[in-house]
Amino acid sequence: MPKKKLVKESEVIMTEMVLPNDTNTLNNLMGGKLMHWMDVVSAISAQRHCNRIVVTASADNISFQHPIALGNVVTLKAHVTRAFNSSMEVFIEVWAEDIPANKKIKTHRAFFTFVAVDQNGKPIEIPEVEPQTPEEIELYEGALRRRQLRLVLAKRMDPKDAVELKSIFGFEEEKNNK
Amino acid sequence: MPKKKLVKESEVIMTEMVLPNDTNTLNNLMGGKLMHWMDVVSAISAQRHCNRIVVTASADNISFQHPIALGNVVTLKAHVTRAFNSSMEVFIEVWAEDIPANKKIKTHRAFFTFVAVDQNGKPIEIPEVEPQTPEEIELYEGALRRRQLRLVLAKRMDPKDAVELKSIFGFEEEKNNK
Amino acid sequence: MPKKKLVKESEVIMTEMVLPNDTNTLNNLMGGKLMHWMDVVSAISAQRHCNRIVVTASADNISFQHPIALGNVVTLKAHVTRAFNSSMEVFIEVWAEDIPANKKIKTHRAFFTFVAVDQNGKPIEIPEVEPQTPEEIELYEGALRRRQLRLVLAKRMDPKDAVELKSIFGFEEEKNNK
Amino acid sequence: MPKKKLVKESEVIMTEMVLPNDTNTLNNLMGGKLMHWMDVVSAISAQRHCNRIVVTASADNISFQHPIALGNVVTLKAHVTRAFNSSMEVFIEVWAEDIPANKKIKTHRAFFTFVAVDQNGKPIEIPEVEPQTPEEIELYEGALRRRQLRLVLAKRMDPKDAVELKSIFGFEEEKNNK
Amino acid sequence: MPKKKLVKESEVIMTEMVLPNDTNTLNNLMGGKLMHWMDVVSAISAQRHCNRIVVTASADNISFQHPIALGNVVTLKAHVTRAFNSSMEVFIEVWAEDIPANKKIKTHRAFFTFVAVDQNGKPIEIPEVEPQTPEEIELYEGALRRRQLRLVLAKRMDPKDAVELKSIFGFEEEKNNK
Amino acid sequence: MPKKKLVKESEVIMTEMVLPNDTNTLNNLMGGKLMHWMDVVSAISAQRHCNRIVVTASADNISFQHPIALGNVVTLKAHVTRAFNSSMEVFIEVWAEDIPANKKIKTHRAFFTFVAVDQNGKPIEIPEVEPQTPEEIELYEGALRRRQLRLVLAKRMDPKDAVELKSIFGFEEEKNNK
Repeated sequence: MPKKKLVKESEVIMTEMVLPNDTNTLNNLMGGKLMHWMDVVSAISAQRHCNRIVVTASADNISFQHPIALGNVVTLKAHVTRAFNSSMEVFIEVWAEDIPANKKIKTHRAFFTFVAVDQNGKPIEIPEVEPQTPEEIELYEGALRRRQLRLVLAKRMDPKDAVELKSIFGFEEEKNNK
Repeated sequence: MPKKKLVKESEVIMTEMVLPNDTNTLNNLMGGKLMHWMDVVSAISAQRHCNRIVVTASADNISFQHPIALGNVVTLKAHVTRAFNSSMEVFIEVWAEDIPANKKIKTHRAFFTFVAVDQNGKPIEIPEVEPQTPEEIELYEGALRRRQLRLVLAKRMDPKDAVELKSIFGFEEEKNNK
Repeated sequence: MPKKKLVKESEVIMTEMVLPNDTNTLNNLMGGKLMHWMDVVSAISAQRHCNRIVVTASADNISFQHPIALGNVVTLKAHVTRAFNSSMEVFIEVWAEDIPANKKIKTHRAFFTFVAVDQNGKPIEIPEVEPQTPEEIELYEGALRRRQLRLVLAKRMDPKDAVELKSIFGFEEEKNNK
Repeated sequence: MPKKKLVKESEVIMTEMVLPNDTNTLNNLMGGKLMHWMDVVSAISAQRHCNRIVVTASADNISFQHPIALGNVVTLKAHVTRAFNSSMEVFIEVWAEDIPANKKIKTHRAFFTFVAVDQNGKPIEIPEVEPQTPEEIELYEGALRRRQLRLVLAKRMDPKDAVELKSIFGFEEEKNNK
Repeated sequence: MPKKKLVKESEVIMTEMVLPNDTNTLNNLMGGKLMHWMDVVSAISAQRHCNRIVVTASADNISFQHPIALGNVVTLKAHVTRAFNSSMEVFIEVWAEDIPANKKIKTHRAFFTFVAVDQNGKPIEIPEVEPQTPEEIELYEGALRRRQLRLVLAKRMDPKDAVELKSIFGFEEEKNNK
Repeated sequence: MPKKKLVKESEVIMTEMVLPNDTNTLNNLMGGKLMHWMDVVSAISAQRHCNRIVVTASADNISFQHPIALGNVVTLKAHVTRAFNSSMEVFIEVWAEDIPANKKIKTHRAFFTFVAVDQNGKPIEIPEVEPQTPEEIELYEGALRRRQLRLVLAKRMDPKDAVELKSIFGFEEEKNNK
């Protein structure tokens, strides 16, 4: 097993068409179907990073601001941002495309985490991620903060210990300004 | 349109069996499929509260700690916790049941939000929620905090203004102790 | 294994949305899809009563009088009415709901039967049902009559022996009046 | 519109393979999936008889005595037996085939009824059936009896008026023997 | 194992309805869905000829000239034309039917080939085909030519050795006329 | 509308996981399912080239030599090779990946053609393709030959006029050698 892997080794691109059964009463893609696709693309990305069976550990807060219409083409891109022992964070970007109208917009950014397991479902160690571009480094560094937020929200970390997380909310600065 | 509705008026129970195509290599339910079911059950609950077409606005952080096996029966219960003008927060609980083994465990708690819209997709005002039991009241009050977290994470609220949110992380207390 | 179980122990509620692929040319739910849902909800109910693998043994005559439209929410409620050695009768009620129009109607009543089996598919003894409310008792008592009708229709009982059944058709009375 | 049509004009043959998602825990075809197929094949048969849109009106009692295994090929044959104004009875026969084992058994006989409707869902008159072979004639004659049973079970006919039906149960004979 | 089997022993008829999710933006059946059905019907036909597990070996050039509309009934008929050691060629004909309009047209002719394998996926010898009617004989004889075209296109046969194939393109005649 | 478009403007990557319902008795991907995916990925590619609704016109001979197992990840890449008035040829490459075993093999090459149509399904003129790399140029030139083979096989071109096609089979050389 390699010690480290590059971000691009875990890149996955998935393309889907929005079919009638995927849509709600307004003929727009249902949020749940999109989350299903996000889970599949990010699970494949996580598998590529670690060459192991992986199981979904969490999905971060997802916001749905752009309706995606019936007949649109949806492109999902995913890659691993950082690994922590046996778990990985995967970053997913989503674009919706109305091809006859020649319009393509970025609709979503999301983070899912996965755990690599052996055949019995037991967590197993995986390679680290070696970020290279500025964007990869930014995502790598932000991963620590997002991880603390997940642990606090799952009540598995005392908020007082979430040192990295505080910077999201600017609480440190606030105190410094006193 | 009524001014207020009770929590129980938006209650929905959904029961699903885990079929082969819903499972991963370890024969456990894929996270994406469960999120799809969560979206459907909570959309129906939001519809029942407001008697309108609804669209998914967000899904809060979801953590997957308990694998759900092929053949298990999954029960999802949802109800609206609180309404804000045209949006609603829905609380979802999930249980997995291995009926021949007579085992039933609670596997997930999740929050989704929806916006009520008219036929053109324009947001429209909805009734308020009137919580009654202690649990309903607790969820009603927490809704404000969770809403601020969503707005901060979507960069639509300055963290300094997220007064309610700070209490989640105990930052207020910390400052008081100085 | 308990000797007897209450009716409410086998209660199941299932909620489904009518999607485009479930509908016919008139945009109404296809009868076959509804029967599929009836089979799933009643199989889960039967499993809950006996904590065993169950297989469908029969579906009673089903009449489709109310079309259910695309986008409607369908609620199915099922519970076991009575057990006979290794077989159970399950009662299913179906409601269709046009939520934006605030209309909910009861569309179907149906009876399915199931046999509890072991891992090799061999029938196995199950607990009896203990009916309590007047409605439960009525369903419990009618189960015998419906069972005779099934046996006669499957040519596994001589109509002359179907003592209970005759009362459905009022033949007994007719003879008494002679 | 022709006054009468032959039985063979409404014949339909459907062939399906049993896939993983169609099966229960014992790897056998779920009853609900088979009923779904029965509904489709008989709806097409009814359409062929009347060249109209049709909607399912009822499904007669179905008994499941032969498990059908994963990987089996299922053949369904359907034809209209008799028409009544705007409604038709369709007869369905089902065979299951384990082709590598060279085994084919007849597993089911079922009757569904359909109503022919116009674009607004209003019932519309249809051609009569002209039975020719002895089997077609037998099914044609039995259709009246089965219709009365459906009407009695749906509480739309007083059992006392179900003259044809009585012969199923041999009650007439019984009385004659007195 | 019989030495030879008749063509009619491998006949399969499949009937499908075109549902919303099977259609493209123009509400016509997607080509890929039809190819999927062709593969299923011809695989069953190949199985019936050899009573073995079969795997798809090739699909010949398919041309889509007639759009098939949502709600149409599609009938596929398949039978084996000829066997070569462990492989078979299957001929598929497709009809599309707009039943309310009383229109039925033949839309496709296609050829798929299959290989019979044992439980380990190893090719295994199968019976020959005994063609009887003029049409069966013509298909039997053409099979050799189509086989050479497949082998040449897959670069597994030198075009110079494709003696039978040349006659398709009339090259032989051309040379004779010089 | 641009006069010409580059090949890379029509590139599409699709990634799919092989699920239980996609597989045959040997747990390998069914050929028909793969053809379905090929049709979707190449239709999207054709749409991207012409920004129009497209309909499948033909699928060239496809050969299945490598079984693809349950749980494998399948990657499909497609791009337009050449345009002819209102039709386009799309080239599709397929890879199968057993990620935990770190194995990826190229399993298929295929050509589909599409016609660009307006809202009434009438063919409509599209941009030409401007090939740039040696591989793109080779595919562009071969497109003419493959087109003639399609026309001959569909009996829409006299083989004598298929000048380009003859070179595939080396018939020209043969004659030159006389």
